[in-house]
Amino acid sequence: MSIINVGCQLNYNVRSPTVLLLNLSVCRNSHQTVTSETLEVRPFQSAEECEVGPLGNRIVRINASPGQMSINYLATVELRSDVVDSTNVNETNYEQLPADVLSYLNPSRYCESDKLYRFAFEEFGHLLRGYSRVTAICNWTYEQLSYTPGSTGPTTTACDVLLQRTGVCRDYAHVAISLCRAMGIPARYVSGYAVNLQPPDFHGFFEAYFDKRWFLFDATRLAPVGGFVRIGTGRDAADVAFATLRGEAESTGMGVWANKANLGDEQVDSDNVQSGVSSA
Amino acid sequence: MSIINVGCQLNYNVRSPTVLLLNLSVCRNSHQTVTSETLEVRPFQSAEECEVGPLGNRIVRINASPGQMSINYLATVELRSDVVDSTNVNETNYEQLPADVLSYLNPSRYCESDKLYRFAFEEFGHLLRGYSRVTAICNWTYEQLSYTPGSTGPTTTACDVLLQRTGVCRDYAHVAISLCRAMGIPARYVSGYAVNLQPPDFHGFFEAYFDKRWFLFDATRLAPVGGFVRIGTGRDAADVAFATLRGEAESTGMGVWANKANLGDEQVDSDNVQSGVSSA
Amino acid sequence: MSIINVGCQLNYNVRSPTVLLLNLSVCRNSHQTVTSETLEVRPFQSAEECEVGPLGNRIVRINASPGQMSINYLATVELRSDVVDSTNVNETNYEQLPADVLSYLNPSRYCESDKLYRFAFEEFGHLLRGYSRVTAICNWTYEQLSYTPGSTGPTTTACDVLLQRTGVCRDYAHVAISLCRAMGIPARYVSGYAVNLQPPDFHGFFEAYFDKRWFLFDATRLAPVGGFVRIGTGRDAADVAFATLRGEAESTGMGVWANKANLGDEQVDSDNVQSGVSSA
Amino acid sequence: MSIINVGCQLNYNVRSPTVLLLNLSVCRNSHQTVTSETLEVRPFQSAEECEVGPLGNRIVRINASPGQMSINYLATVELRSDVVDSTNVNETNYEQLPADVLSYLNPSRYCESDKLYRFAFEEFGHLLRGYSRVTAICNWTYEQLSYTPGSTGPTTTACDVLLQRTGVCRDYAHVAISLCRAMGIPARYVSGYAVNLQPPDFHGFFEAYFDKRWFLFDATRLAPVGGFVRIGTGRDAADVAFATLRGEAESTGMGVWANKANLGDEQVDSDNVQSGVSSA
Repeated sequence: MSIINVGCQLNYNVRSPTVLLLNLSVCRNSHQTVTSETLEVRPFQSAEECEVGPLGNRIVRINASPGQMSINYLATVELRSDVVDSTNVNETNYEQLPADVLSYLNPSRYCESDKLYRFAFEEFGHLLRGYSRVTAICNWTYEQLSYTPGSTGPTTTACDVLLQRTGVCRDYAHVAISLCRAMGIPARYVSGYAVNLQPPDFHGFFEAYFDKRWFLFDATRLAPVGGFVRIGTGRDAADVAFATLRGEAESTGMGVWANKANLGDEQVDSDNVQSGVSSA
Repeated sequence: MSIINVGCQLNYNVRSPTVLLLNLSVCRNSHQTVTSETLEVRPFQSAEECEVGPLGNRIVRINASPGQMSINYLATVELRSDVVDSTNVNETNYEQLPADVLSYLNPSRYCESDKLYRFAFEEFGHLLRGYSRVTAICNWTYEQLSYTPGSTGPTTTACDVLLQRTGVCRDYAHVAISLCRAMGIPARYVSGYAVNLQPPDFHGFFEAYFDKRWFLFDATRLAPVGGFVRIGTGRDAADVAFATLRGEAESTGMGVWANKANLGDEQVDSDNVQSGVSSA
Repeated sequence: MSIINVGCQLNYNVRSPTVLLLNLSVCRNSHQTVTSETLEVRPFQSAEECEVGPLGNRIVRINASPGQMSINYLATVELRSDVVDSTNVNETNYEQLPADVLSYLNPSRYCESDKLYRFAFEEFGHLLRGYSRVTAICNWTYEQLSYTPGSTGPTTTACDVLLQRTGVCRDYAHVAISLCRAMGIPARYVSGYAVNLQPPDFHGFFEAYFDKRWFLFDATRLAPVGGFVRIGTGRDAADVAFATLRGEAESTGMGVWANKANLGDEQVDSDNVQSGVSSA
Repeated sequence: MSIINVGCQLNYNVRSPTVLLLNLSVCRNSHQTVTSETLEVRPFQSAEECEVGPLGNRIVRINASPGQMSINYLATVELRSDVVDSTNVNETNYEQLPADVLSYLNPSRYCESDKLYRFAFEEFGHLLRGYSRVTAICNWTYEQLSYTPGSTGPTTTACDVLLQRTGVCRDYAHVAISLCRAMGIPARYVSGYAVNLQPPDFHGFFEAYFDKRWFLFDATRLAPVGGFVRIGTGRDAADVAFATLRGEAESTGMGVWANKANLGDEQVDSDNVQSGVSSA
């Protein structure tokens, strides 16, 4: 078990009354326990928390008045990663996928898997079915793309990225998710905090479904998956934007951090293709 | 109350073992009661029914063996449409939208609302908020597009359609949904059977959210919304494809029908902008 | 006749040997006479001038060595605008278009007229044929778009802009060109210097073909067309980029200017729909 | 020298007065001599021939009256292919490209080379410069794509094809052209007749520029490049559509043929990477 301190600070210049939806609170699930948590809004504004969907996504809604506003979030999380021998982790046959997993085969806004059936099949169709095939998709994504901050934007899709060959963490995840879905492997997007991410920022990674569980992957290799603290889960980044604004406000600064407070689980990292991290 | 008989027949030539996911069974909700229902697969193959998601979508999964296959679905439905005076139906303020409605503001595969904020605002931003604004979006969609079977395909998006100005029912729905979401009005896709649709086919329409309810709309004006029998609900057509195949099979024919068996609710139609049909 | 002084300064930090193709020299044609012209490269590098294509586009090619480099261009131009009564300026029938004009009906990289036939026909098909129809296209483009520096990039196309509703001068020109071509009116892109443009920059406008001549248009209304000094002519901005680099160099600053040195032709401006400026 | 008989028949049902631009006449250049040629329009309509551009593209313009129309074209061509030892054929340095070749580095409607710089560089940047690099691009294109009639349409671009991995001859050419341009190698589209093409049809191939000449390539491997009879040359298929119609007419049938009438040049084929066919 790891104990991880995470947090962020978001500053805004609010020019007219603005509603903010923030998706930055740590998700509560069987793998991560939030032992302490504070959200501070300065100047004080009431913040309503609501849970969205069945996966524990927590949204904080703030009605912001004009002026400077600062949001501070801090949490301490106990993180348990189930490290599983991935050698025998199999893909689930299409006819046995649970009903609530089927929608993660559908294409989504930034993951146009419906345009990539042949692409995926020709690149990965000859590989053995199973966990190792998603590892191969991650490796391929890592090798094809160049991590380039600023090269993509909020409307960039997996298809865009496959052509331009550059992107950031969300783009890597979108590409890998699209290829998984095109191969018939359910896959979904995860936002979170990540220990040892440089430079510190919110991180985007993904999960693929095998053998009745979801497993975590990160095609960027920027941080160990054993140090990921989940915020939200969705079809793609459209579902878990860390901040959505309606009104007139501009970001005037942002900081994000995640630090390990103990010494557990050091052996878990994303390069270890023989052990998968089961996440749900 | 209307009593409506609906059904469809799908024929396939199955060339290798194929899994079919069929989303053609009538949804069960407080507005429509299924009083009888049969699904026949010839030659006999076991069909597993599963409910997908919280909205009552029912999927039938069939493991088909090679050969000719025919699927026949028949249902009788009691349909209750709540006709509401739409004059005072208001948009819900962003800060008051329920948590489970928020995801219907997100862009989705065929509804790129995130690329259309300015477009929507400039076309519809000056209109009064409320039900009549979605009626205006429907009218605009109807006037801009030419209903042209064959002009679009399974990967066509709302943005494609806005440029090419042609489409079929699913495209009309995708355009209207995208514009609603871009305006901050939650909207989602509905597939169904439609009385008096010519030529008979599965139909795609949409819902928008006002005043704690979802209301039905159809920008195609091809059939009265009071004669819509819902099959499935989703973010867009990606979530409610009537048939998804994995394997090798080709469609060799299809028939769809929906007939009213009594004389109720004749006054409800989609042209009547003063009365909305509340659907959930 | 106007006498106009134009010029620009481009600074580069050259990191490895780089070839620059500069398309910033004033074009020589029957409407504009270059009375003096200097191009200075510091530190001195040999600059080869070549004429590209039949329309007088002049390209300067420089083999730049690593280091800081500054390019200064100055020219004085006598500009003669033929102001024509546009009331009776007609579109040329398709069967009478000269062979060398036909290619300006073809779609090009940033002007996807082949996707906009119905769009253009429905917006402008009901209008009287002739010069006033292109004026209507310019007015529509001006009204639809919001001039927003930074909202588009070098790969943005007319279709992108029609959806996002923002752009800069090249985008306005691309939209108008695409709509003209889709209507069967030959149209092409013009880069140049523009008197009274604020902020000063290279400008992009366009020409449409009527009655055996090309006429200048500018959908941005940012500067009078009677003060446009042509640099290059092409199918779209892809043909007349002011600087194309092969190697490693980054722009470290740029200035552009155009000033009228006398008092001629004040009456010519782009709002004057009764008088067209014939350009070739 | 080969003697080749080529021809085509196009039938139309003309519903309203229609202008047809036909680009199906054999180009006249130093490599191919037209020894006999007939164009027959039934019922008789006057046909005007015009040469478009500096590359010998010949367009026939017909003003068609309503009714059935048939166009028959027949030509006998003496074809001389310069077979060159391609081992020492080099790419031309950017600073030495002739001015009239530079525009074939620009992106065009169906060849978005400006979006593929990194893609091309990562796939082909490590290869030796020269003829063999374009051969590698052809081989890669051939291996990546599956030749699938009906999978693409008139607005499909190279980027679309790179994602969907299927196409026909024009798509193969567009992909290869885009990759060449992105690598700094001028490339252009050629339409023509092709001996031994199965099924017989108009063919699309491409040229790349080396050592002061253009060389023919065909990534489809469907017919020997030594049996290609050129019709037109352009930036991409937008410039050399074999038929462009303005009016209301529908194609009711088409036939195309190309047969060798002697026994020359049998050794020339597209698989022979040691010998290039110089085309201009």
